[in-house]
Amino acid sequence: MVKLVAVYKKPEDVEAFDRHYFEVHAQLAEKMPGLIKMEVSKIYGSPAGESNLHLIAEMYFETRDALMEALSSPEGRAAGKDLMGFAGKVVSMHFADVV
Amino acid sequence: MVKLVAVYKKPEDVEAFDRHYFEVHAQLAEKMPGLIKMEVSKIYGSPAGESNLHLIAEMYFETRDALMEALSSPEGRAAGKDLMGFAGKVVSMHFADVV
Repeated sequence: MVKLVAVYKKPEDVEAFDRHYFEVHAQLAEKMPGLIKMEVSKIYGSPAGESNLHLIAEMYFETRDALMEALSSPEGRAAGKDLMGFAGKVVSMHFADVV
Repeated sequence: MVKLVAVYKKPEDVEAFDRHYFEVHAQLAEKMPGLIKMEVSKIYGSPAGESNLHLIAEMYFETRDALMEALSSPEGRAAGKDLMGFAGKVVSMHFADVV
């Protein structure tokens, strides 16, 4: 099992970010072919107090190839285009093997 | 459900890091009371090529209170002490509500 991990730092306008994320972006991401599970988590703090992160989204796929195919599919490209439009400044994406 | 998320940037010595993480640290973390599930993921890349991250570890608890109790338990303090010793320079910790 592998996952695509999107790590979002705190956006300038949290309310506008959340509205777009949950009403538009998450629904685009969920359409990616081969997606097994999507888990979205909202950061509420850290041991030191405030966290610099806002959200972590994890999209699970069977294999590394399935993840790459999902990203290059029309649905994946639509989600990627949307992502850059509303969160390009705060997001970083990572590919991970679940141990 | 909430989770404690440990985000590790690439360490200087990956081999030594992995040895300590998997042979010592993960086992200390797993002893925390109230821990429901632990998921460890190794980053292998990003859409842009190499990722700046090495590992993400997620420890799930029933509630925010259960997470705080786990961290302040003897087992949580032992895991935290070990963490600072081998990964203090590369780790950041975050508390998250699973949406």
